[in-house]
This record gives sequence, C-alpha cells and structure tokens, in this order.
Amino acid sequence: MAEKYTIGLDYGSNSVRALIVNVRDGREVASATSVYRHGESGIILDSRNPDLARQHPMDYLSGLEETVLQAVGEAAERESLNPADIVGIGVDTTGSTPLPLDGQGRALVEHADFEEHPSAMAWLWKDHTGHREAAEITALAREHRPEYLERCGGVYSSEWFWSKVLACLRTAPDVFKAADTWVEIADWIPAVLCGTTNPRKLKRGICAAGHKAFFHDSWGGYPDEEFLEKLDPGLVRIRRSLPDRTYSIAESAGKLSDEWADRLGLRAGIPVAVGAFDAHLGAVGSGISEGTLVKIVGTSTCDIMVAPLEKDLPLISGLCGIVPESVLPGFHGLEAGQSAVGDIFNWFVNVVGPNNMGHDDLTVAAEGIRPGESGLLALDWNNGNRTILVDQRLTGLLLGMTLQSTPGELYRALIEATAFGARVIVDRLEEYGVPINRVVTCGGISTKNRLLLQIYADVLNRPIHVSSSSQTCALGAAISGAVVAGVHQDFRSAVHSMTSLKEETFQPDPRASAIYGELFALYRKLHDLFGMEDGTGSPYRVMKELLDLRDRVRKQ
Amino acid sequence: MAEKYTIGLDYGSNSVRALIVNVRDGREVASATSVYRHGESGIILDSRNPDLARQHPMDYLSGLEETVLQAVGEAAERESLNPADIVGIGVDTTGSTPLPLDGQGRALVEHADFEEHPSAMAWLWKDHTGHREAAEITALAREHRPEYLERCGGVYSSEWFWSKVLACLRTAPDVFKAADTWVEIADWIPAVLCGTTNPRKLKRGICAAGHKAFFHDSWGGYPDEEFLEKLDPGLVRIRRSLPDRTYSIAESAGKLSDEWADRLGLRAGIPVAVGAFDAHLGAVGSGISEGTLVKIVGTSTCDIMVAPLEKDLPLISGLCGIVPESVLPGFHGLEAGQSAVGDIFNWFVNVVGPNNMGHDDLTVAAEGIRPGESGLLALDWNNGNRTILVDQRLTGLLLGMTLQSTPGELYRALIEATAFGARVIVDRLEEYGVPINRVVTCGGISTKNRLLLQIYADVLNRPIHVSSSSQTCALGAAISGAVVAGVHQDFRSAVHSMTSLKEETFQPDPRASAIYGELFALYRKLHDLFGMEDGTGSPYRVMKELLDLRDRVRKQ
Repeated sequence: MAEKYTIGLDYGSNSVRALIVNVRDGREVASATSVYRHGESGIILDSRNPDLARQHPMDYLSGLEETVLQAVGEAAERESLNPADIVGIGVDTTGSTPLPLDGQGRALVEHADFEEHPSAMAWLWKDHTGHREAAEITALAREHRPEYLERCGGVYSSEWFWSKVLACLRTAPDVFKAADTWVEIADWIPAVLCGTTNPRKLKRGICAAGHKAFFHDSWGGYPDEEFLEKLDPGLVRIRRSLPDRTYSIAESAGKLSDEWADRLGLRAGIPVAVGAFDAHLGAVGSGISEGTLVKIVGTSTCDIMVAPLEKDLPLISGLCGIVPESVLPGFHGLEAGQSAVGDIFNWFVNVVGPNNMGHDDLTVAAEGIRPGESGLLALDWNNGNRTILVDQRLTGLLLGMTLQSTPGELYRALIEATAFGARVIVDRLEEYGVPINRVVTCGGISTKNRLLLQIYADVLNRPIHVSSSSQTCALGAAISGAVVAGVHQDFRSAVHSMTSLKEETFQPDPRASAIYGELFALYRKLHDLFGMEDGTGSPYRVMKELLDLRDRVRKQ
Repeated sequence: MAEKYTIGLDYGSNSVRALIVNVRDGREVASATSVYRHGESGIILDSRNPDLARQHPMDYLSGLEETVLQAVGEAAERESLNPADIVGIGVDTTGSTPLPLDGQGRALVEHADFEEHPSAMAWLWKDHTGHREAAEITALAREHRPEYLERCGGVYSSEWFWSKVLACLRTAPDVFKAADTWVEIADWIPAVLCGTTNPRKLKRGICAAGHKAFFHDSWGGYPDEEFLEKLDPGLVRIRRSLPDRTYSIAESAGKLSDEWADRLGLRAGIPVAVGAFDAHLGAVGSGISEGTLVKIVGTSTCDIMVAPLEKDLPLISGLCGIVPESVLPGFHGLEAGQSAVGDIFNWFVNVVGPNNMGHDDLTVAAEGIRPGESGLLALDWNNGNRTILVDQRLTGLLLGMTLQSTPGELYRALIEATAFGARVIVDRLEEYGVPINRVVTCGGISTKNRLLLQIYADVLNRPIHVSSSSQTCALGAAISGAVVAGVHQDFRSAVHSMTSLKEETFQPDPRASAIYGELFALYRKLHDLFGMEDGTGSPYRVMKELLDLRDRVRKQ
C-alpha cells in the first residue's frame, strides 16, 4: 500500500509554511516557506501609530501557492511522492487576525478602492489600534454580560476580533460599510481552498470564535445583538452575518476546489480541515494530552493545556481563554500566553544592537553569567502582558543597571524575565487546581536556544521537554488533515502516531532554582506593583501615563 | 612689565591636566594631559568586586611631571613664556580619594611589600568597598554624634574618608598597620610639591576634611577618639596623626621644593596653594558667587553654591555637605551632586554599544525625538544616588520600552534622567530657601553636548549659562595659585578678572518645559518609591535585595 501524506499550512506572523507529512509516523517529508511580500517582514506598519500592524491578504494566497508547489515538487523529486497520495490539508494561522470580506467571500483589497487601504487588510494579532474599543467592550461586558468576560480572563483584548471590527467602524467607516462580514484568516484560508463564495456558508472554527469573539453555546454563540448595539448599532449587521454554530478541527471545512487543486497540483476533492490558531495546532503537533502544558515559544509564547469536557473546570482569573474543543474534540482548550518573548530578544539584538553582537554571541556571553550575578531584573512587557494581567498598555522595565552591566548580562536578564513571566502562568494554573505533570516546548526558540530552555527549567523548577518537530504548528495542521481524511480515527491515535519528543530534556539545577526562587519573588513584586491597580501610592499609573503622554505628543 | 602665569593641576578620574593661565585675564596659554598608566583608563578594578576602584599614586607624580613639562614647553615655544614668570601653583583632585602614607610622607606603594597592593593605593572616590563601614558609621553617628551627620546630608557615604580607612583596617590589616596616616590626594600632591616629608606637618584642606571626614571647628576638628574607638580602636592611632586645623585655598601649602622645581623646570620657592576638590575649584573657575549654582557636568555632576558665612544657613536634608570656606574664604560651601552623568552615557555607548553608534550619532538621533514622544523614563542611578538620597546601593532603572524603542530614544531617556536628577537637587535647595538666580555649567559635557544643555534648560525651566573655559577645574586651581602668589588680593578680584561666560545661553522652551513637568512628576514618583524606605509594599527593597543577591553569588 502506498504511503499517504497530508499538508499542514502554517500562517505565521511573517511567513507561511507548507509542510508535507507522512500520516503513518509523522515524518516530515518536505517543507517550504515564503515571507509575505508587503510591509516590513510581511507586516504593514505606520510610524505615526505604533499600535498598527496589518497584513495584505493576497500575500497569504500567493504564499500558499508558492510554498505548496515548492514542497510538493521537492517531495516528488526526493521521495518520489505522488501528489495523488496527499489526502488532506490542515490550516493554522495567527490570531485573532480578522479581515473584512465582500459579499462573494473575497478580501476587500481585491476591490480597486481598497487595494492599498490598511484597514481593508488583515488586522494582525499584534495590531493594538483597538485598545480604546477593547476597554469599552470590557466595561460594557462587565456591566451587562459578565459571563462573556469570565471565559477570557476578565478583560477583552485589543488584539481580538470585536475590538478590531469596532475600531474599523470608528476609524475607517468606508471600509466597514463595504464589508459584508469579517472573518478570521484561520477560517478564510480553508474557505478559499474549498471555493466557498458565500460568506454565510463559510464554516467558522470554535478556536478563533471561542477564544477571541465571545462565542459560547451557553449564550447562543456570538454575542447578542442587544449587547453589540450598545457598542455601536453598526455592529448588528456584522453579527447577522455570523453563523450560530462553529466547528472543531476534527471537522472538514469542505473539499479542495477544482481551481485550487489545479493551482496547487493536488487532487481535487480532498478534505480541508477547519482551521485553528497556530498555538492550538502547535500543541497538537507537540503531543498535547491531559496534564501536559505545551509552550509554543517564538516571537511570543502561547501556553496550551486541555482538560476533559466532562470535568468541572473553574474559571481561571487572568487566563486568555477556556473554550470547549478549541484544541481537541472532547476537551476544554485552555490558552494562556506572553505577548512578547523572542520579539524582546530580537528587539535587543536588531533595534538596540549591542556591540553588533548577534543572538549567538550574546548567548555565549549570557551563558557565562550565573543566576543572580548581574544584579539585573526585567519585566517582559515590551509588548504588554497577556496572562495573567491581560493588559496591552504595559511596557518593558529593566532595573539594576550599574556602569558595568554588559550586553550579555542584559540579554540574560531579558531571557530570565520571560521565564519569570512563564512561571506566573504556571503558578496561576496550579492555584486553580489544574495539574501540570509535564512541560513540553516547541517553536523556533526551543530548537535554537539551549540557554533559554535551561533557564526555563531552573526558573520553573521542572524538567523541560522539547518536541521533536521544529514545525509543530504545521505538523498539528497536517494531523488535523489526517483526521478529516479519515486516516486516523481520532486525534488520540493521530497524535500518538505522528508526534514525538526529543530524548534530551532540560533538568532543573537545584542551586540555580533556589536563586531564581529569590529573584522571582522580586519579579513578582514589580509585576504586581506595576501591573495591578491598587489605589494608593503604587507605581501602577506610571506606565499608563507615559503611554498617554507618548500618544498625545505623537498626535501633535 | 612681563605677563605672569600660574599653573593649575587638575587630577581627574582618568588623567591629570596641567594648565598654564595668564593671571591678568585668565587666558589659557597651554595645557597638557596624561592618562594614568595603571589599570583600565587609569583605574584599577577587580572583576570579583565591582565596588573596587583604586589608583596607583605613582601615576599622579609621573603624570604631573609629564604634563607640566609638556605645557611649559609648549607655552615657551608658542608664547615665548619664560618659566620664571610662573608665579604660583594650585591643585585640584577627585575626592574623597585618600591614600595611606608612611612616616616619611611617602605612599605605601613605594615599599616593595605593597608595590602592587590595591589597598595601599589611592582609594578613588568611586570605590564603594566600604559600603558596610559607611552604614556602620552612619548608624553610630546617628546614635552618638547626630551633629556629624547634619552637615553631610544625613548619611555618611561609602565614597568618603573614614569608610575607606575603616574598610582598609578590616580587609587589609597589613596595609592599615603599615600606614602612619591617611591623606586625601588633594592634600598629598601640594605636600609632595613642597617637599613636606613629615606627615604631621602636612597641611590639610578644609574642602576634603569638611566635606568627607567629619571635620568641623564646632566639635574640635576631626571626629573625637571616643567616637572612632567605638568603630574600631585601631582608628584612634589614625586620628592622632591628623591635625587640629585645616586651611582654605586662599592659603599656601608651602613653597615649591628645589627637587620638584628642578624636575618641572620651574622657579623654586613659588607658592603652592592648599588643594581642594575638582568641583570646588571648578566652581571658582566658573565664576561662582552668591546665588549662582555651578554645575560641573562630567562623568558625574557636582553642584556647588556659596552662601555668606555670616548668614544663618539651615541644614539641608540630603545635601552632601555644607562646609565653611570649602569653596571660597568668607563663604559656606554647599555641595550636592549626581554620582553618574556622563558615565551613564559612556556606559551606554561603550559597554552596551548600541548599533556601534557613537555619542555624536546618538545625539543626532536623540535630537529628532520630542519630549515625551518615546514613552521612556529612566532613573539615573547606575552609580547610586548622591543627592538627595545619599545612597550608593541604588541602581539604574529604565521603563517604558516597547519592541520599537530605538537607541536614540534610550540615549535621550538617559540624558533626561540626569536632568530630572538635577531638578531634584534644585528643588531641594529652593525648598530650604537657598535662592538660585543663575545656573552655570562647566565640565566636559557642557562644551560638547548642546542637546543635554537644552534638555537641562527645559527640565529646570531656567536659562543655562556655560563657562567660557573648557577646563574650569584647572582654571580654578590656577586662580588659587594666583591668589596665594599675591597677584590678586582676593578671590573676588581673581574670579572677576580670570573667568567669563560664553555669550550663548540655552533658554527653556515653554512647550518642552510643560511636558517635562509631567514627566518629572513620574520620575519623582519612581525616585521616591525606589529610593525611600516607607515600610509597606513599596518597591524600595527591590534594588537592595538584587545587590545583596549579586554580591552573595559573586562571592561563591
């Protein structure tokens, strides 16, 4: 019997990857990536508005074609793969990254009027232009729909669906008016592949809807019209464009259309799984199961756990989301995260540029420094704090500098800060009775930065396992493709067959852990003082007022 | 009549300068500098002990000979100066920078046993190895001699004389035992020039003794034996080696010895003024008078004011020192300061090395940024805080970083931090009723960094004047040489004739001042929260505990 394969399509912040995977053992047969063409490293920025981050939707489609053709070509050559043996496709994307569609399911940028209009593009997850709208949504929900907030950590984020849709309504009414509906790219890509031209028939995944758009069956799906009308009557029309049910990744979004089969050189009619976010499918590709915390450590970090649907799960304060079946069917999906991790190190290397040292040089320098030796301590908030503070209007802090503090020390302090941020999340999960028996890391940094993994082991005081795959998100997407193709009967079997861990684990060093225990107490003190409003004399307002002043000055 | 000249010898942190000045109009005829030979840029460091900073005393003497010969040679060639027309010498140095002497007034390092022993060298002002001793002295004085502390800001510093002598007793008892006495280099250099071989006859200046060694006539000079015995009985012997009276810079330390006249090519017997600290003579060289705040802005900043002796001056909390005649005869000298200013910018450029940009590149980048625009705020404590917190165990803080924060923004934030630190001092002086009618800057940075001067004008919301001389410390020393030589009858006349200001002043921009007013309120909040113990929940302990942990780890 011929080997079968599926394709995982992984839409990251800067590029798209196509990965071809053998469904029997998860072997990664070929892959290709393509950086999005528009903007800086695929992101459209605005120097007058540091909150803005958009992507051109056509980059997603050209990148799709380019990477699939290249990967299939390579696999055909190297492994004599017959494209007809590719039996399914899965898709993961960043999120919440919604874009406005016209009545035919096309991106608005396909219309000449909106070709280069940033608001008609995809609003990338790290776009924070809707931070005022997020605060407004949070305030309204707190008053009228507290149940909405309970499932997303108590605060609605500027990174999420409704903040962005409302911000578009306010700042680009022409775009808003022209949009028939808004869709997460996690849902749009499968719809495009399946030739879905009616936006009303576009299947929406529970992952994006549940984590980012207030969708929950207990209140009838998306937020009700009365609530949305209070924000702005214009939102009611968008609400009416949305379906009443959503789908898990165990379900097919449709079948590959003739047009796209032709463009990609694949068999028409193979199933395309419902899309989900990269972190969620990364967790699948890392072998998620009950009791395992999967940390996808990249430019930011996503933490994913699952808990059986039948188990009564408490609402965990500050957690980004607890959504039924957002990761695996049959389980609650729990999502937490850190808004910037690799992005902070990249900022230090690429923007600050210490002594023109690269990551490798700085890692060597940082490895020579013992825990506590530098006297430095940082807060990892250069892009805000997702869990547990759920506050984008926070900024970085670095403390303890002398006249001798070296780049290696600063770099290590930044890594340690992200480790302390990770520990806050672990502590919060355990405080609420979610047992963590195993920590598995995946994502770019876990394959490259042994120093970071050791620091995480020491700070968390637990072994750190590493996924064998260096592209677990794409692998998870390929696994969902294998499930919808019926090659595996369920995710349990698919995950068991198609994922594995590296043999080497990073063990905590007791001495380092003890010192990091002391440092973490100081981190936690600063975290609470700068991150939590307490009324009297605390420095909580300092970061906020600096940002307010910055925004005022930049507008002058 | 032939023109007359004096020489100002200026001992800085890294080099010594000899300046030849025309006593009639203050014209600077020739100068030469020499970097001390030992250590890194003249400073002996210890990687295991970041608090240690020493200098080799022989570097002071070889540098003296080298620079005077070179300056006199140049002046003779360019200006046909006759060395016989040099009529006096003045000396300024860093401080408190004490060194141990043997019974013949020689540095202990001249003995083979101690040749390379760091504790037998000069303990540079920024050596903080005596921080525990400083705390002990402060605690003892608080209990038994509160009057001692009232005149030095309430806290005895690790930078000062007795902290260092006591630290030597504790950490290098062999050196302590071999020392006949300890002397500030401000007093030692004139003594060497005058051939003073009996340490008992060595004239001590009021500037060093009054500001750094608890000397005051009201309690009989240096601290009493009973007090010192409580610290350690070994100190009593050092106390007995010290004189009961001190001298102002209006007095001569003696006459240039035949030996040194010969070595320097000068006339033997010309008077050498009593030495003083660089900042104090820098203030003289900048034209100090009542109501003028002179800021000597260099690697650190010293703020100097004078107030008539007959005026009843309150004790100003947090001020480093109020000492009769420490600047000018007939006036109280008031000293405040910031432990690091240029040193912070140098750290950023030379140690952090952002994008390999130099000060000029960073200044250009920083000039393009408007006040408040970066969202950044820093505390200027990379070398502790001298005024008003008087606490060396404080460290730098930088807050507000995003993933876009640029080196130019960081550099500007560091400059602004030092300006806010300057404003804390100005505010404190005014709170205590010391009127400031004029601010004059001098020192390396005031001649080089127009951006800094504009930011200071905006933050202080006052015009900033700049001294004409780029070497006001050496000029002030030369002025004291002119006074002891009798060329001018008093300092008033000498200062009037020999100093001037640049025509250009830096005027505050009302819009920038308004924004800096808001930023200063935030700076002051962080300053008070991290700098002042308040018991409950404040971040005050964070910097301390990081330093304690650092020191513990480094000792392992």
